[in-house]
Amino acid sequence: MTAYASLARHFGRVSAMSNAIGILQWDSDTMMPSGAAASRAESLALLRVLAHGMAVDPRIGDWLEAAEAESELTDWDRANLREIRRVYTVETALPADLVEASSKAISACEMKWRQARADSDFAGLLPFLSEVLKLQREAGAAKGEKLGVSSYDALLNDYEPGGSSARIDALFDDLAAFLPDFTRKALDAQAHRAEPASIEGPFAIQAQRQLGLKVMAALGYDFERGRLDISAHPFCGGADNDVRITTRYDEADFAKALMGVIHETGHALYEQGRPAAYMSQPVGHARGMSVHESQSLIMEMQACRTPEFFAFAAPLMREAFGGAGPGWEAEAMWRRATRVERGFIRVDADEVTYPAHVILRYRLEKALIADAMPLSELPAAWNEGMQALLGITPPNDRLGCLQDIHWPSGGWGYFPTYTLGAMTAAQLFDAACRAEPDTLPGIARGDFAPLVGWLRANIHAQGSRYATDELLTRATGRPLDAGVFKAHLARRYLGA
Amino acid sequence: MTAYASLARHFGRVSAMSNAIGILQWDSDTMMPSGAAASRAESLALLRVLAHGMAVDPRIGDWLEAAEAESELTDWDRANLREIRRVYTVETALPADLVEASSKAISACEMKWRQARADSDFAGLLPFLSEVLKLQREAGAAKGEKLGVSSYDALLNDYEPGGSSARIDALFDDLAAFLPDFTRKALDAQAHRAEPASIEGPFAIQAQRQLGLKVMAALGYDFERGRLDISAHPFCGGADNDVRITTRYDEADFAKALMGVIHETGHALYEQGRPAAYMSQPVGHARGMSVHESQSLIMEMQACRTPEFFAFAAPLMREAFGGAGPGWEAEAMWRRATRVERGFIRVDADEVTYPAHVILRYRLEKALIADAMPLSELPAAWNEGMQALLGITPPNDRLGCLQDIHWPSGGWGYFPTYTLGAMTAAQLFDAACRAEPDTLPGIARGDFAPLVGWLRANIHAQGSRYATDELLTRATGRPLDAGVFKAHLARRYLGA
Repeated sequence: MTAYASLARHFGRVSAMSNAIGILQWDSDTMMPSGAAASRAESLALLRVLAHGMAVDPRIGDWLEAAEAESELTDWDRANLREIRRVYTVETALPADLVEASSKAISACEMKWRQARADSDFAGLLPFLSEVLKLQREAGAAKGEKLGVSSYDALLNDYEPGGSSARIDALFDDLAAFLPDFTRKALDAQAHRAEPASIEGPFAIQAQRQLGLKVMAALGYDFERGRLDISAHPFCGGADNDVRITTRYDEADFAKALMGVIHETGHALYEQGRPAAYMSQPVGHARGMSVHESQSLIMEMQACRTPEFFAFAAPLMREAFGGAGPGWEAEAMWRRATRVERGFIRVDADEVTYPAHVILRYRLEKALIADAMPLSELPAAWNEGMQALLGITPPNDRLGCLQDIHWPSGGWGYFPTYTLGAMTAAQLFDAACRAEPDTLPGIARGDFAPLVGWLRANIHAQGSRYATDELLTRATGRPLDAGVFKAHLARRYLGA
Repeated sequence: MTAYASLARHFGRVSAMSNAIGILQWDSDTMMPSGAAASRAESLALLRVLAHGMAVDPRIGDWLEAAEAESELTDWDRANLREIRRVYTVETALPADLVEASSKAISACEMKWRQARADSDFAGLLPFLSEVLKLQREAGAAKGEKLGVSSYDALLNDYEPGGSSARIDALFDDLAAFLPDFTRKALDAQAHRAEPASIEGPFAIQAQRQLGLKVMAALGYDFERGRLDISAHPFCGGADNDVRITTRYDEADFAKALMGVIHETGHALYEQGRPAAYMSQPVGHARGMSVHESQSLIMEMQACRTPEFFAFAAPLMREAFGGAGPGWEAEAMWRRATRVERGFIRVDADEVTYPAHVILRYRLEKALIADAMPLSELPAAWNEGMQALLGITPPNDRLGCLQDIHWPSGGWGYFPTYTLGAMTAAQLFDAACRAEPDTLPGIARGDFAPLVGWLRANIHAQGSRYATDELLTRATGRPLDAGVFKAHLARRYLGA
C-alpha cells in the first residue's frame, strides 16, 4: 500500500468517526429524551477523544512525507495532501493539557453564560470568560506559531482556512463606511412606501412542515440523503450522505421557519454536492465557513427574498394555509421578507443591518485576542460600537454583549464568516445570473436547476480543491470584494 | 487508583462506546435515509472494532487479578468482578482472524438469505450457511475450551450466561411431551366456543400511537429516558438511560402494534430499572436473554392477555377509535387476543404453539453445531419436526427453515431463550401474584405498580448480581421448571 493510500484509508476512518459523532450530536438536538443527557455526554466525550487521537496519529506525519514524494498522484490527490498537511499541522499544534483545560473552561463558561445572559450579569460571567479568552489566546499563539500567522488569524483559520484579518479589515472597513448612511436611506425609502398588507395566523405546524418540504424539493435537496426535523436552534448537521437539517416552527409566523428551512437547505445542498469520490477525504470537505455561509445565504437572501421567488412560492403558501387577501399577494410577501429594522439582536437582524452586528464583534474579538483591550471593558465597547455602526445602544448586556454563545463556547474567529458569507453569496449569485441567464426566471417557475447546477459545478463539487480566493476567482473572475454586495443592497432596498 | 477503580472506569468507557453504537443502530433502523446506509455501515464497523479492542484490552486481565485480591469491595463490586471476568474470558477466546472471517461470512450469508427466502431456495443458501455454521462451530469450540463447556453451550452462553443444554433438554422434553396433546385440547375447546365478535378497521395510525403511549405510561415506562418510534422490525434498543422502543402499525389491526408495544415496554422496563449505581458496569447489565424475554412476555402474555387487562384497556380502545358494538367488549377482545392457531411462522405464533417452533429450532441447531446432522438435511429434518411437534408440514422452505434470520446472521444458541423466557415469565408472574395480591386487580384498574414494583425489586434492580438460577430462586423460591407455564396454559386455554 502506498503512503498516499494509507493516508486515504486513515482519513476514511477519521470520517467514519466524525460521521458517528455528527449523528449522535444531531440526535442529542432532535430526538434524545432529557434523561439521557449525561450518558450521551459521556459517549460524545469518548468519541471526541478517540477522534482527536486519530487526527494527531504520528503515522500521518510519516505518511505525508512519503506521499508528497509519490509521483502517481492526481491533482485532487495533491490537493488532498495539502489539506491533510494543513489539518494535521493545526491539530498537532496544541499540547494535550491546553486542549483539556480549554474544553473544561468552555463547559464551565457555557453553563455560567446561560444564567448570566438571563440575568444580564456580565460581571458574573467575567472570570469564566476571562479564562476562556486566556486559553484561546494560548491556542491562537500555539497555532499561529506553526502557521506563521498572528494569534487571531490562527483562530480564524479554524473556520476560514487561509483567511487573514488584514483582508477582512479592508473588506469590513469598506462596508462599515457604507452601511450607516445606507441603512438610513433604506429606512427612509421604506418609510415612504405604504406598509405591506399583513396576514393572520395561526399557521398549522404540519402545514408549515409540508410547505418546507415542497420548497426543499424545489431547491434540489436530496431526501434520500437527509431529513427535516425540529430542534430548538436550527442547524444543518449529520454525516456524509446523511445531511440533516432542522427548523423550529412558530404558529404565528410561518415565514420564520420557511426562511430558516431555505437557509439550512442552502448549507445542505453544499454538503450533499461535495465530490463523491473524495467525500470522506479532507479535500472533499467544504472549503470553509464563509463559503458555507454563502451557500445558505445565496438561497435565503439572494434567491428567495426576490419577487421571483414569491411569484413561485405565494401560490404554494396560499394553498398550504388556505390564505386569501392582499397580504397573501407575492408583492406583499416579498416586501415583508425584505423589511429593514435596526435591532439589538444579531440573529433577528435583516441583511442590511446584519453586517454591523458582525463587524462590531469582529473588531472586539480581534482586540481581545491581541490583548489590546481589557475584557472588563467589553460591555462599554460593545455599546459604543453599536451606537457608531447601527445608531442604537442596548439597554442592558442581555441585549448586548451577552447575547451570543460564540465567545463563551470558544468560537473566537468565527463571527466574520457570517458577513464574508453574505458578500460571497452576492458575488456568486451575480456570477450565476450572468453565466446562467435562466437563474432568476427559473426561480419564478420554482426551477432552481440553473442556479444549483452552476453552484454544483463551481462550488459544491470542488470541495477543498482550491483555496477560497482561487475558488471564488475561478467562479466569478475575481477574489472577494464588497462591491457586488453593496450593489445588491442598493438595488433591493433603494431600487438603485 | 485501585485496580477495581481502574476496571470500573474502563468499563464506563466500554459502556459509553456501546451506548454510541446503540443509538447509531437505533437511528439506522428508524430515522436514517436510505442513501446513508454505506456511510453508516463504515461508522458502525469502526466503532465495533474499537469496542472490541476495549473489551480485550490486556490491562483488564492485570486489573482483574489485582482487584480480585482487594479487600475493600462490596458484594456488588465482587459480583461485578465475576461478570467482568466472564465477559473478558469470552471476548478474548476468539482469535482476531476468526472474528473477521465470521463477520464477513455473516454479511454475505444475510444478504443471500434475503433472496433465498424470497425464492424459497435452500440450495442457493447452503454454501453460505455452511460457511457461517463452520465458523460458529469454531467459535463455539474456542469459547467452549475457555469455559469448559461444549461448543453449543458456549454459543448459548453468549445469550444465556450459565445456561446449559442439559438443563434445556430436560425442560424442553417436558414441554414437548405436553404440548402436542395440549394444543389439540386447546383447539377443541376453542372450536366449541362461539367465535368472538370481530371489529372493523381502518384504525388510524396516529390514534394507535396515542393508545400505545397511554398503555406504556400505565405500565410505568419512563418517557424521560426513552421514546416510541416506528421500524420495520420492532425492537427495544438505544443506550443506558435512553431505552427506545419501536413498533409498526397495521391500519387493519391495532392489536398487533399494541401487543408489540407492550412486549417491547416489558423489555424497556427491565433496561430502565437496572441498578442506577452500576448502570455502566457489567454487573448492572440485564441478566441474560431468557430473563429479558421473560420481562417482555410477563407484560405481553402474563399481564396483558388477561380479562383484567382488557377490563382496563377496552374503554381506552373504544375511545381511541370511536369503537362500539359487541366486538369492542372486553370479553371479545380478550378472546381474540388468546386465539390459538397452528401455523408455519414462528413470529406469528400464539403462546401455545410458539414453544414448538422454538424446540424444533433448538434441537436442530444443537445437532448442527455438534456435527450430528449434515446441513443439507435441514429442510427435511425441519419439516419432520414441524409434523411431530405441531402436526403441520410447511409447503416450502420459505415457510420452513428459511423463515428466520438467526442462523444466517450467526445467532446460533439464541432460539431457546424465547421459550425459557416464556416459562420464566409464567413462574415470575405466579410469584408476583402471590407476593402482591393486588397484581391482577391492579391491572384491571390500569395500575401496574404492584407488578412492576415487585419486578423492579426482584429482577430489574438486581442486574447481573446473581446467576439466573439464583435470581429466579430468590424471586420465586426455586429454579426454573415447566410446571407453572403448563399450569398457566391449562388455566387460560382449558379453563383448568
